Amino acid sequence: MDYQEHFKQIAKFIEKTCSELIPLTDKPYNEIFLAARYSLLAGGKRLRPLLAILTAEMLGIHPDQSVASSCALEMIHTYSLIHDDLPGMDNDDFRRGKPSLHKAFPEGIAVLAGDYLLTYAFEVLVNAKHQNADQKLVLISVLAKSSGGDGMIAGQVMDIMALSVDLTSLQQTHLNKTGMLIAASMEFGAIIGKATTEQRNLLRQFGLDIGLAFQIIDDILDVTQSKEKHGREVASDLINGKTTYVSLMGLEESKNFAKSLTNKALESLKTLPFDTKPLKILTDSLVNRQI
Amino acid sequence: MDYQEHFKQIAKFIEKTCSELIPLTDKPYNEIFLAARYSLLAGGKRLRPLLAILTAEMLGIHPDQSVASSCALEMIHTYSLIHDDLPGMDNDDFRRGKPSLHKAFPEGIAVLAGDYLLTYAFEVLVNAKHQNADQKLVLISVLAKSSGGDGMIAGQVMDIMALSVDLTSLQQTHLNKTGMLIAASMEFGAIIGKATTEQRNLLRQFGLDIGLAFQIIDDILDVTQSKEKHGREVASDLINGKTTYVSLMGLEESKNFAKSLTNKALESLKTLPFDTKPLKILTDSLVNRQI
Repeated sequence: MDYQEHFKQIAKFIEKTCSELIPLTDKPYNEIFLAARYSLLAGGKRLRPLLAILTAEMLGIHPDQSVASSCALEMIHTYSLIHDDLPGMDNDDFRRGKPSLHKAFPEGIAVLAGDYLLTYAFEVLVNAKHQNADQKLVLISVLAKSSGGDGMIAGQVMDIMALSVDLTSLQQTHLNKTGMLIAASMEFGAIIGKATTEQRNLLRQFGLDIGLAFQIIDDILDVTQSKEKHGREVASDLINGKTTYVSLMGLEESKNFAKSLTNKALESLKTLPFDTKPLKILTDSLVNRQI
Repeated sequence: MDYQEHFKQIAKFIEKTCSELIPLTDKPYNEIFLAARYSLLAGGKRLRPLLAILTAEMLGIHPDQSVASSCALEMIHTYSLIHDDLPGMDNDDFRRGKPSLHKAFPEGIAVLAGDYLLTYAFEVLVNAKHQNADQKLVLISVLAKSSGGDGMIAGQVMDIMALSVDLTSLQQTHLNKTGMLIAASMEFGAIIGKATTEQRNLLRQFGLDIGLAFQIIDDILDVTQSKEKHGREVASDLINGKTTYVSLMGLEESKNFAKSLTNKALESLKTLPFDTKPLKILTDSLVNRQI
């Protein structure tokens, strides 16, 4: 099996489904859908829905049955990027090599497009055709908690208040800002695939570990990669005076830490009675391609 | 029965419950809860949860069993005010006689506090102790739709894009921006109180009508009331060049239209086989006290 091709096909399926979930209209307020699509359909790895779909598939669920609910994860991730880029937040003019949403549209529309994607994520989960009422409520609960005031938003608060002064607080910031939504993605797959509580907890921890690893890699890329490749200004974290793993640990130590987290996560997968190879290969390729 | 006292007691109960739902913490990111509480507990009529609780009470449900879910409506309303006031949106420095959230806290915290309240509203509904799984899913669906891209957010898009150029488009803007969440409040009461579909639809229409009436009254107050009484700069709509009912219809015609909408709504209540007096008295007092 060509796993990379499989991942690509699923990513395309995610993009297609996201697009169908937010069709263009002739409504007078169509601008909000245009703006949401500008950011939501801007490419990217689709990592969160991809992890959810692969995890559900590992548990015997066809992507047809998990894709819509998984798109809710991408909507939450996208809204967080839109709001993160705003002038009152990180004030980033570029995202994935294109002008940020508030540069391509009026700033107010960018605020509202973020609000719309956030709200719509929950509507998509309520409307999910292939999950039963109990599954929907658990998905909604997991999404709200992982992206909420003790989840992703807590990480963003710590980030903009520059509370990450040492490794402990930086780790909490990254776990909240990135790890929790990736953990939620693994839980989405577990819930849709009706995993046991024990399996779901293991998959959640896998998500926290690789989420933290990916954030460290992001810190590394911020220093080592050019705008062309990464789609952002070089070393924007350093320019913004933000504490990062690289600034606290140095480049080599950061790489080693990301690798050890990834190895721990991959080891845990081996205890599951499923074909975990797709998850392993995806994780490997994401880590090794980039550092 | 002293209805005004009853409304006051319920408003206090709403405020207390909202406060308990967002306790202060010693977490490093406590600032987000401080900011959310600054806006959420800033007084106000608590109209949306009050309507939901009174409607449920009319259907035999004690406020103890409806208050938490009803607070989700106040959270959505409050987030929309926080984001509406942002510099990239209406750029209002005052709200309810106090500095706007982005004036009292850093702007980024205001963006995130809005996001937090939006997200948390759905978590509160998932956690509702007194509603069953089916009720929760319907509440979540109603809240997401009424506040989403074809609901409240559509109204805000039309508002900031100045698309309300005539009475038809102004009415759509107001119905979306204000009417739909008030209609959702009536539906919340109906769902919690297990009303029939027919009754729920009638209550929803009641909400749309009085929601539009209240928005027209808001337009009127913007012209006629001082900052002390209304808590905002005088005639900010006019200063901002916004089309309002007053600018399109004139003051007297606007008052008459608000009254006729209210009368239509109150007439419809008479067809319900319940004690609708509390809803009638609340509506009367809100309309008559202000215009």
